[in-house]
Amino acid sequence: MTLNFSKCQSVLITGASRGLGLQMVKQLVSNAERPKKIIATARKPEEAQDLQQLAKSHPDIHIVPLDVVSDASIDAAVKEVSSIVGPAGLNCLINNAGILIDTDLNTVTRDAMTKTFESNTVAPLFVTKAFLPLLKTAAAAGQGSGMGVHRSAVVNISSLLGSIQLNWGEAANFKTYAYRVSKSGLNMVTRCLAAAVELEGILCVALHPGWVRTDMGGPEAPLSPEESVSSVLSVISGLTDKDHGEFLSYVGEKLPW
Amino acid sequence: MTLNFSKCQSVLITGASRGLGLQMVKQLVSNAERPKKIIATARKPEEAQDLQQLAKSHPDIHIVPLDVVSDASIDAAVKEVSSIVGPAGLNCLINNAGILIDTDLNTVTRDAMTKTFESNTVAPLFVTKAFLPLLKTAAAAGQGSGMGVHRSAVVNISSLLGSIQLNWGEAANFKTYAYRVSKSGLNMVTRCLAAAVELEGILCVALHPGWVRTDMGGPEAPLSPEESVSSVLSVISGLTDKDHGEFLSYVGEKLPW
Repeated sequence: MTLNFSKCQSVLITGASRGLGLQMVKQLVSNAERPKKIIATARKPEEAQDLQQLAKSHPDIHIVPLDVVSDASIDAAVKEVSSIVGPAGLNCLINNAGILIDTDLNTVTRDAMTKTFESNTVAPLFVTKAFLPLLKTAAAAGQGSGMGVHRSAVVNISSLLGSIQLNWGEAANFKTYAYRVSKSGLNMVTRCLAAAVELEGILCVALHPGWVRTDMGGPEAPLSPEESVSSVLSVISGLTDKDHGEFLSYVGEKLPW
Repeated sequence: MTLNFSKCQSVLITGASRGLGLQMVKQLVSNAERPKKIIATARKPEEAQDLQQLAKSHPDIHIVPLDVVSDASIDAAVKEVSSIVGPAGLNCLINNAGILIDTDLNTVTRDAMTKTFESNTVAPLFVTKAFLPLLKTAAAAGQGSGMGVHRSAVVNISSLLGSIQLNWGEAANFKTYAYRVSKSGLNMVTRCLAAAVELEGILCVALHPGWVRTDMGGPEAPLSPEESVSSVLSVISGLTDKDHGEFLSYVGEKLPW
């Protein structure tokens, strides 16, 4: 698939130590039209061996520590990223970090609901809020008109399981209550943010990456991380005004809330 | 408006000390075709003076202490309600208790997000789960076929502000981030529960009561509590299979998620 990040100076991906986040870094760095600066964050970079290995052979990957549920950690990361991106600002923030605790009506606990909500719903709001100054700078400095990664974009990695409308019939057999609720909440956060940052020229979308064979998705998932991320990055690189505030699938189709 | 609760033996309303909850109790008790047993819960019944006053002249109102964010309080309430409703079970559970903390992009805090989520999203899930045995009993014992308050129904008081789709354009000026996210989460909880309890014959819906002049809605709201609740109770008393798993307005219209 063709990616075009040639007008996108910098991309930041949260939760890049494994799974989809790591795969995004891999594909971005090996792409001909790649962003100049790839910032990969991980809660514990010292334990992210695959990411460290990748960065050894690609010095344009910047690994930054970031625990998305900690304001202190976010503040430190913003400072470090600010010095990495400089006056061009940050063109693309991908809120990918997230957790899944398997829960159904019998096994769900208040703690699982709240913990998942804090990681998957609240954290992307506060990470985005903290990076807004850098995103605004990039939106103002970016070349060309319209919205997209050539200026500034926030991509929240959501899930089809967060679609309230599609949680019915056979699809409702995927219970994962805490995860579903956190992702519908993230979709609302996306919509709130999109309305708030529109005037600044910052694009904001929720994106379903498909059901993928990662640690989270499990071995039965139909998509490989390579397939999912190739498609996801293609959608992200092609985002335009018409996608702003929407919930998209990994092939760029509009999904119902 | 005509209400018909003649085949509904018992209704439980959470958060009945004031606002919409109190108004529901008032209108139910003064209705000709009223449920035999009206159970009004409040976090601190001793401070719910209006409710206490109402119960003095209507001994068929049962006031039960219930703090919806406490499992111990829920367990105690289920025991008390069980002895009130007896072998007929509980026909209708109205999850009305909720909070609103005014938040926008500048003022929102992690604490406001989590606290609102715990009250408005997580609590209705755990209250419903705890009352399921009584709801199942009523669904099995109820007269007539199909779903509705003559058998067993769970009504989650949601809000138009929880509609992700409608959070756009002018409507997005109502920011209330924490509240919006909690109500979209409640809509997902409603849909999860609806799928889970369908086979038991328990109906489950999310209901928007309108924008009402209560302490929560403020003085600028277009609807009086009397108008809202009259319409809400009419919708609840008329719920049928076709409403199961839906998001309805106070006039019974389907709302988008």
